[in-house]
Amino acid sequence: MRYIRFRDPSGSVRRGTFDDGTIRFGDRTYDPETADVLPPCEPTKIVCVGLNYADHAAERDSELPDRPLLFFKTPNTVAAHGSTVTLPDGKERVDWEAELAVVIGEQCRNVAAEDAMAVVEGYTCLNDISNRDDQDREQNWIRGKAFDNAAPMGPVVATPDEVPDDAAIELRVDGETKQASSIDQFIFSVPELIAEITTHITLEAGDVISTGTPAGVGPLSDGDHVEVEIDGIGTLEHDVDA
Amino acid sequence: MRYIRFRDPSGSVRRGTFDDGTIRFGDRTYDPETADVLPPCEPTKIVCVGLNYADHAAERDSELPDRPLLFFKTPNTVAAHGSTVTLPDGKERVDWEAELAVVIGEQCRNVAAEDAMAVVEGYTCLNDISNRDDQDREQNWIRGKAFDNAAPMGPVVATPDEVPDDAAIELRVDGETKQASSIDQFIFSVPELIAEITTHITLEAGDVISTGTPAGVGPLSDGDHVEVEIDGIGTLEHDVDA
Repeated sequence: MRYIRFRDPSGSVRRGTFDDGTIRFGDRTYDPETADVLPPCEPTKIVCVGLNYADHAAERDSELPDRPLLFFKTPNTVAAHGSTVTLPDGKERVDWEAELAVVIGEQCRNVAAEDAMAVVEGYTCLNDISNRDDQDREQNWIRGKAFDNAAPMGPVVATPDEVPDDAAIELRVDGETKQASSIDQFIFSVPELIAEITTHITLEAGDVISTGTPAGVGPLSDGDHVEVEIDGIGTLEHDVDA
Repeated sequence: MRYIRFRDPSGSVRRGTFDDGTIRFGDRTYDPETADVLPPCEPTKIVCVGLNYADHAAERDSELPDRPLLFFKTPNTVAAHGSTVTLPDGKERVDWEAELAVVIGEQCRNVAAEDAMAVVEGYTCLNDISNRDDQDREQNWIRGKAFDNAAPMGPVVATPDEVPDDAAIELRVDGETKQASSIDQFIFSVPELIAEITTHITLEAGDVISTGTPAGVGPLSDGDHVEVEIDGIGTLEHDVDA
């Protein structure tokens, strides 16, 4: 099952299903081409994981961490499928980073890895947009990672059964493939991440864990059309205004 | 004016005034000794400032930053006045840090320093509880600063006119003074912090900026009774379970 949040023609916020090219809510259907798609959930926090693919750690000249490298994207970072993301002014390099994002289904704490899939509602696509100018000179990645619109997400939440363990993840800019990998390349698995994070932090329903990006990051430019596609979820698309 | 959030005897959440030893909401009054006091606001994020007093930077062997050192405490960190804070398990050192916290009154972005006080609703007291074991070994201070209950706040939001520019800030443990300074010792002022943060990040009504701690930080222990007092606001109190 795939769930989509959208505003219907009356302006009401709805959560429908999107499973055969049609959005359904109650007995109504909506055209996905003209629907006003919203971010698929409303996280109180996005817990992000750095360096969770070995090839990306190598391209950033970073050692593999011995435990998950965590950072936050706050609610102001959330942007919708189909939106135009405005990059921070005057930066040399603001990069794309395609990621599988885990959407949490219930409030939880101290979840063991073997029980972790019970708290997962599903998965979505996320672009962890990263302002390297600031990221590379600050202790905590605030200006670098948590500026407004730095986390386009969507288009749907796909339940775990829809997403194969070796799902392909791909990012394209103007149709050209820039990142192509599989989520079977994770250093820390989704259950391991949930166990580690919830040792310290309560997660809420709608919170997101973003699982890191594979090799192939690169700089966004004005006018770029970005697609993040993951098997079983679909394709997040957004434009760039720089 | 001082505002206090509390649960009334029926369980309803109310925001009353607290200006002469009595909580008032509508035509009713409530006894502050028996009121169920809630955190004074519901932040979507707490933007914290590190090393904003020179004497604390010295005691942490840290150089003064050339721009504000920022980090986040997420909503799971919020704890109320009068609560008991449970420290993370098995840590060598979890410290107190008394701070003046700014409560934002309206959604805002790109606020100039000279206009910044217009978006401030008021001030409260905050204990930026810090797990040094993890803080000192992670890039981003997530386990170190954003564990559950790591930000007791309160008891009230005092409007800016109530708090003098040279307000004393003091932290006591079991009645013994551990930190004593004044908010006139800030390296970056409240307007400068708002200007810098909103260059990158939209703040929401109820969001909090915590302005850093003076010298005198030290380790919390099981059974400690902590008080953070700031002139014009009052005294935040909480207990510690370790």
